[in-house]
Amino acid sequence: MKPALDFFFDFSSPYSYIASEWIEAVAARHGRAVHWHAILLGVTFQAAELKSPVAHPIKREYSIRDFARSARFAGLPYVMPAKFPIPTQNAARIFWWLHDTHSTVRAVAWAHAGLRAYFTHGADLSDGATLATVATESGLDAAAAQAAYTDPLWKERLKRENDAAIAAGVFGAPFFIVDGEPFWGNDRRGQIEQWLSGHADFQRTVM
Amino acid sequence: MKPALDFFFDFSSPYSYIASEWIEAVAARHGRAVHWHAILLGVTFQAAELKSPVAHPIKREYSIRDFARSARFAGLPYVMPAKFPIPTQNAARIFWWLHDTHSTVRAVAWAHAGLRAYFTHGADLSDGATLATVATESGLDAAAAQAAYTDPLWKERLKRENDAAIAAGVFGAPFFIVDGEPFWGNDRRGQIEQWLSGHADFQRTVM
Repeated sequence: MKPALDFFFDFSSPYSYIASEWIEAVAARHGRAVHWHAILLGVTFQAAELKSPVAHPIKREYSIRDFARSARFAGLPYVMPAKFPIPTQNAARIFWWLHDTHSTVRAVAWAHAGLRAYFTHGADLSDGATLATVATESGLDAAAAQAAYTDPLWKERLKRENDAAIAAGVFGAPFFIVDGEPFWGNDRRGQIEQWLSGHADFQRTVM
Repeated sequence: MKPALDFFFDFSSPYSYIASEWIEAVAARHGRAVHWHAILLGVTFQAAELKSPVAHPIKREYSIRDFARSARFAGLPYVMPAKFPIPTQNAARIFWWLHDTHSTVRAVAWAHAGLRAYFTHGADLSDGATLATVATESGLDAAAAQAAYTDPLWKERLKRENDAAIAAGVFGAPFFIVDGEPFWGNDRRGQIEQWLSGHADFQRTVM
């Protein structure tokens, strides 16, 4: 088995949602596992002195159009959530709680459930009741999930993951690290596939 | 003939260089002409309250890597110029001078000459002597080119083009407008091809 690749996502990132739907199949085709990392995009933006694309007035209208168009291009259902962006720390803490105490499979299933609920139904994951409903529908014990995301242990766990992501050079989401090579954005799918195919010309060290 | 598409580029933009090498072939395959627009990326960034990706420390290292990788992915020669970015108003004024007084074909040939000189040899287009050499090598009268870029007429022409681009919603480069649909970035090539192919599902109005 070749080394796993790292996939960093935020529950409030449309491009993360799109990437979450293809990353496993692409990786599997090339004999790779995927290590999923729920992070907070806002924290990485802050570290890199960047802003959300929708924070810029002129770019906002384009971005909203591009989110939906990029989903159509990937053949995925998509709705622009009425509330966007949203704070996603509770959804992310549930991810790490499942990851560490249940299994990575359960954590990834939760990532899919949360991303799909938000980007195909507009379910506001920052609202406690909505989050409980999404958790229940995805087979979790909602009370246990809530206990986890209010527990300092999982708050700290997410904080460590954000710090580790920033230390690894992550400044946005989705972000991928493959064999030490960083790729930023859903639109780097083609380059990631080329890299995984092992084309020596493409992989050579830059400069 | 279907309507032409608009292609906005800056002589100092690596992703514009890459896009300049495929846009004509892609458009031609779908029976479209291309209207080239030399603009100043800095002016559009300013209007949109954005910054160059290399202005952000954390993003800079990634971007430099991604420029070269994206060129390899497109099968193009590329060097990271020692001086980057550079002011490109003189190269852009030469473009508009050729466009208006010679032909669009000559203007596009100059766009290719300038972009290739900068991104495959690192020729500093902001330096008068270097610009004269590149102009001569591309078959222009260097003295006439210099007279053009110092002439208030062509300064004003470029300013009008920048204003028109901003009014059209352009906030970066390369930028494409196809049938009124805006596409930002070399990495939207796949979506542009899909759009030009006329897939009704893909083209439907957003939201």
